[in-house]
Amino acid sequence: MSNLAVKETPAAGGASEAVRAVLDRVKAEGRSALTAPEGKLVCDAYGIPVPQEGVATSADAARQLAERMGYPVVLKIVSPDILHKTEAGGVLVGLKSAEEVAKGYDTILANAKSYKADAKIDGVQVQQMLTGGQEVIVGAVTDGSFGKLVAFGLGGVLVEVLKDITFRLAPVSRDEALSMLDGIQAAEMLKGVRGGEPVNREALADLLEKVSRLVSDFPEIAEMDLNPVFATAKGAIAADVRIVVDFAPKEPRYRPSQDEIVTAMNRIMRPNAVAVIGASSEDGKIGNSVMKNLINGGYKGEIYPIHPKAEEILGYKAYKSVKDVPGTIDVAVFAIPAKFVAQALTECGEKGIPGAVLIPSGFAETGNVEGQQEIQEIGRKYNIRLMGPNIYGFYYTPQNLCATFCTAYDVKGSAALSSQSGGIGMAIIGFSRSAKMGVSAIVGLGNKSDIDEDDLLTFFEQDDNTKVIAQHCEDLKDGRSFAEVARRVSKKKPVIVLKAGRTSAGAKAASSHTGALAGNDKIYEDVFKQVGVIRARSLRQLLEFARGVPILPTPKGENVVIITGAGGSGVLLSDAVVDNGMSLMAMPDDLDAAFRKFIPPFGAAGNPVDITGGEPPTTYQNTVRLGLQDERIHSLILGYWHTIITPPMVFAKLMVEVKEEMKAKGIEKPMVASLAGDIEVEEAAEYLYLNGIPAYAYSTELPVEVLGAKYKWARGAGLL
Amino acid sequence: MSNLAVKETPAAGGASEAVRAVLDRVKAEGRSALTAPEGKLVCDAYGIPVPQEGVATSADAARQLAERMGYPVVLKIVSPDILHKTEAGGVLVGLKSAEEVAKGYDTILANAKSYKADAKIDGVQVQQMLTGGQEVIVGAVTDGSFGKLVAFGLGGVLVEVLKDITFRLAPVSRDEALSMLDGIQAAEMLKGVRGGEPVNREALADLLEKVSRLVSDFPEIAEMDLNPVFATAKGAIAADVRIVVDFAPKEPRYRPSQDEIVTAMNRIMRPNAVAVIGASSEDGKIGNSVMKNLINGGYKGEIYPIHPKAEEILGYKAYKSVKDVPGTIDVAVFAIPAKFVAQALTECGEKGIPGAVLIPSGFAETGNVEGQQEIQEIGRKYNIRLMGPNIYGFYYTPQNLCATFCTAYDVKGSAALSSQSGGIGMAIIGFSRSAKMGVSAIVGLGNKSDIDEDDLLTFFEQDDNTKVIAQHCEDLKDGRSFAEVARRVSKKKPVIVLKAGRTSAGAKAASSHTGALAGNDKIYEDVFKQVGVIRARSLRQLLEFARGVPILPTPKGENVVIITGAGGSGVLLSDAVVDNGMSLMAMPDDLDAAFRKFIPPFGAAGNPVDITGGEPPTTYQNTVRLGLQDERIHSLILGYWHTIITPPMVFAKLMVEVKEEMKAKGIEKPMVASLAGDIEVEEAAEYLYLNGIPAYAYSTELPVEVLGAKYKWARGAGLL
Repeated sequence: MSNLAVKETPAAGGASEAVRAVLDRVKAEGRSALTAPEGKLVCDAYGIPVPQEGVATSADAARQLAERMGYPVVLKIVSPDILHKTEAGGVLVGLKSAEEVAKGYDTILANAKSYKADAKIDGVQVQQMLTGGQEVIVGAVTDGSFGKLVAFGLGGVLVEVLKDITFRLAPVSRDEALSMLDGIQAAEMLKGVRGGEPVNREALADLLEKVSRLVSDFPEIAEMDLNPVFATAKGAIAADVRIVVDFAPKEPRYRPSQDEIVTAMNRIMRPNAVAVIGASSEDGKIGNSVMKNLINGGYKGEIYPIHPKAEEILGYKAYKSVKDVPGTIDVAVFAIPAKFVAQALTECGEKGIPGAVLIPSGFAETGNVEGQQEIQEIGRKYNIRLMGPNIYGFYYTPQNLCATFCTAYDVKGSAALSSQSGGIGMAIIGFSRSAKMGVSAIVGLGNKSDIDEDDLLTFFEQDDNTKVIAQHCEDLKDGRSFAEVARRVSKKKPVIVLKAGRTSAGAKAASSHTGALAGNDKIYEDVFKQVGVIRARSLRQLLEFARGVPILPTPKGENVVIITGAGGSGVLLSDAVVDNGMSLMAMPDDLDAAFRKFIPPFGAAGNPVDITGGEPPTTYQNTVRLGLQDERIHSLILGYWHTIITPPMVFAKLMVEVKEEMKAKGIEKPMVASLAGDIEVEEAAEYLYLNGIPAYAYSTELPVEVLGAKYKWARGAGLL
Repeated sequence: MSNLAVKETPAAGGASEAVRAVLDRVKAEGRSALTAPEGKLVCDAYGIPVPQEGVATSADAARQLAERMGYPVVLKIVSPDILHKTEAGGVLVGLKSAEEVAKGYDTILANAKSYKADAKIDGVQVQQMLTGGQEVIVGAVTDGSFGKLVAFGLGGVLVEVLKDITFRLAPVSRDEALSMLDGIQAAEMLKGVRGGEPVNREALADLLEKVSRLVSDFPEIAEMDLNPVFATAKGAIAADVRIVVDFAPKEPRYRPSQDEIVTAMNRIMRPNAVAVIGASSEDGKIGNSVMKNLINGGYKGEIYPIHPKAEEILGYKAYKSVKDVPGTIDVAVFAIPAKFVAQALTECGEKGIPGAVLIPSGFAETGNVEGQQEIQEIGRKYNIRLMGPNIYGFYYTPQNLCATFCTAYDVKGSAALSSQSGGIGMAIIGFSRSAKMGVSAIVGLGNKSDIDEDDLLTFFEQDDNTKVIAQHCEDLKDGRSFAEVARRVSKKKPVIVLKAGRTSAGAKAASSHTGALAGNDKIYEDVFKQVGVIRARSLRQLLEFARGVPILPTPKGENVVIITGAGGSGVLLSDAVVDNGMSLMAMPDDLDAAFRKFIPPFGAAGNPVDITGGEPPTTYQNTVRLGLQDERIHSLILGYWHTIITPPMVFAKLMVEVKEEMKAKGIEKPMVASLAGDIEVEEAAEYLYLNGIPAYAYSTELPVEVLGAKYKWARGAGLL
């Protein structure tokens, strides 16, 4: 009984020591799993409730233990040599009397002997048998990228079949633990269905917290399974504990400090002097394109072409090596074949250049893993941060810097985008130009031998020219670092990620593409949400979110109102609101009456506000003004219907006017628009977009998706 | 025992008579539900397996029955006055001996008396208790729109919480019944998990078939629940039967025969003479816009303006009434206020005009339900088919016919679109023009007082100018008719439907918009799939599918291959393939080797075929040609990466060349393309699209969605 008396976690020191002692013994004995009693000791140390139990070494002792804890009980063989207890006939459940227990003890011993004659047998565990309540699973795993994760799901085969499980980075806070209970599809089961009692949510959350802390404190705990946990209205008790250990965890990845990253990345992204290694006067050469882009892009810093023979390239004095350049160099752009990179990189190190942009391909992506390791080692030796290899380079528009062989790009804006793949980078460039999105930066990450998504997040976090960060990735080499940085950065600026390789087919393609193994997609899904990252579901969504999210003001609440001239759009917009995790405000009577004053008697009440199709511009104006003025409404979705009485551009200009009028009074709310009509609506949509109202022609879903992304961000950042 | 011996459905006559006798008695007694023994009789008549059972009127008889069928058994009170048996203490389960049964009999009787002293008690049912196997639910419901539906799901609270249930129109064929077993998320449970035996699929399908036939044969059976059904490796037995009846089913909707529909719709859609009621010379009037659209649109038939005073309108002789027109009129377009419609419609009837296009609003959508009923009655009286009211009219481009007040539209093509809402109609027009989609028809359905989606399907089915039918709807007033027609039509031409009001918020908005109550969305989902309708998830998808699906040749098999210059696109395209219900072909070694001959040594093996980014046009040409030539490949997805060596238009022209080259050899396969690059890719995408290769810039998902829609259609039509 005393085992259950441990309700509070003991002082950290005591708990740590107890667990350490168990793990030391397991390690000394060369085992990779804990026995049940060891598992119980570990749980006790962290205050994880387990059933009353004890180990008996005689039938009589088993009987006595059972009498003390009450029936029914479970008997289990305790032997370091028998891992699959059930298979060995080493488990008996539901024993209801002293006689059954005594007899059961003998049966189990006999079974164990016949299963494995030479098995060392420590005794038979007698355990209080739990029944009733909801069976749930609490677990912890070690992910190759994200490290320690805690998992939660319901028990039972059906849930396994449906893969209804949710993950969080460990350790979790109480709120995060509670969010896990709502994070499964079958969440309702925990609230008590068909008259069943709801489970004790605090007790379950407490359990999740403790498990997450335990595996974080002891990285050698590779896996932990509490299955089942019986969750009742009173509490949560883990009926079975399985702990797998790994005493040879992988080397943690080298990470500079955040300050070091900021310093280096600022020199790379906003350099005063750029060297182009492999600069060329010859049209068609990559080193020629890079030079032209730097020059024609309007970069105002120093440009140093590096070439073994040339005296001068495109009007700039050329040098044989970066070491010959008299001044300081902040970043070197490499436009030479892979085989020459190591030598040139060493020279960069000797020159003290803090960053190298490695355009060349021919490294890990073509199987040349050693070549990539070699340059990584040079980078570490000289403290050079490496971008790439196998990239298009990067753009940083506030400095008119096009450090790339692709087209020069000059549409300035506040979105910073990056891509792991060159093709996707080109799509970013094309879309940005076409949609007049404007960007602060576009960065190619390619093989990510060094600089990766979290380095970029760290830089863009403190870059005043960037308001939103959108990243395409196929893997996260260090998901843990990414998540930690993203958690901080997303509080300040929206972080949008398109994770490719979601499906097993996609993951297979990703692996053939960059050698990256895509992890379980559900882990990405849950961790992104946990740290406030907005997940894009498609390339277009990544681009549209990057374009629309920074334009929208942050909503001050969840009340969304649709104002539409087309009833049909209203229905589709309503569907889209739900699909994107928002909800339509229940319209208060007085507000409903106020809207009704502006619309025809047969216009529809409530939300959507259906102003009907034949209305003049003033009806849109009055209703939208009211929507912006009323404090209970937090954002507006407009549905426009092209008519002769209110032509597209009349509507568009009026909406921008109303928006500006309200802004002058200090009122700013997110507003998006869906335009249904003939092709003139395209011009109107563009005008609206350029004036702060994300708008789409022929689509009811895209504007709502953009608004939904803003909401996701605001919630994740704790602003709602 | 003899009860279970009924394995085969008896001769239809006998079965019918048995069920009819039960229903007659229930009706005579004014009940709305069957007792358990009545339910059993009905099941027996249709060969639906139920447990052995009998009704005892004494404890001794109960004991004897139980002895015969074997233990355990269940006892249940049989009383027409006690509906909630469990609540009344009228159910005892798991009785394992003669004594328990005899004692149970007395207990139940005592409980029933204390629950309701005056209840008429017919006895106690003794029933074989089923255990083991998988508990499933088989049911049938009567939907307001679709009529009789059969339902299937797993048993248990969890499944209810997850709403994991699937529907089909009743009656179902064996194949449809089998498809239901795969139609639930938890389908794997039926296949035997964790070493469990798989259920007998044929037995379950047989049960579904029989239930579906029963409710179809007897429309007064409003609801039927077999819950639980115990499904084992041997068979499937319904442990509990609940049947609810409704002897006052709603009046079936009037439907002309398919021939009558074709005849009338051909005169309406392809008229030789059109009357415009309310034609006007005055700019800005609807009757003026309609006249101008008819004239300027290039319509070559007769145009008869109808106006109470005018002698001539826009050069055409005007008449006071359609009755004054000397010749035959095929369709009358109404451009007069609602209050004048009934009178003018009556005159149309007297004139023998078979169709009226009712543009005016002011009917059911504004609460004027009586007004709408009045015109419906006139329509029926004179056999006039009514389009609308509350619509923009319609376009039929093969006749240059713009019977609408909206912009004239003249881009001819093979897509026929319709919308319930005017705003969505305008979006169709704008998109069609902008995307150069080309349409055969655009039709507004508005309030659907008469002509609806199935009339249009029937017309377009036999219209040689139409290759694909795309419909936006908020409800289906007669889902049953729609489904029956769509099932036939979709075998010949793809039918794409955007069902608005999917979510409860959307349904609420739909209901305020047109007075239509949106049904359970899962029913739409399942029925659409059952009858081969492709469901669009968004307005853009409806439009893109209408544009792309008819262009693509029908695939001859499921083997999809991605050929990509951008590895990053390959990953995203692979994700999209899975998301859209297709699968990547496992690349045979010889084919892999054949592709490898054309690509650099570091290009990736398998599928996607990653030709890498720096390749010249010939690499695209060679690989795509191989992909088209090899018979094992059934469709291609191309990922293009914009480079200087292979510019966008070079790529686009080459792909069209290869496609034409193969076509000349009789090889046609669906091909779609995703283009990543600077804005020049937009022109290339348009060129590809216009030449039979649906292509999208900056998107990896849209081209795959279009291909996926084609696959869905081909599968539904039985072509794959």
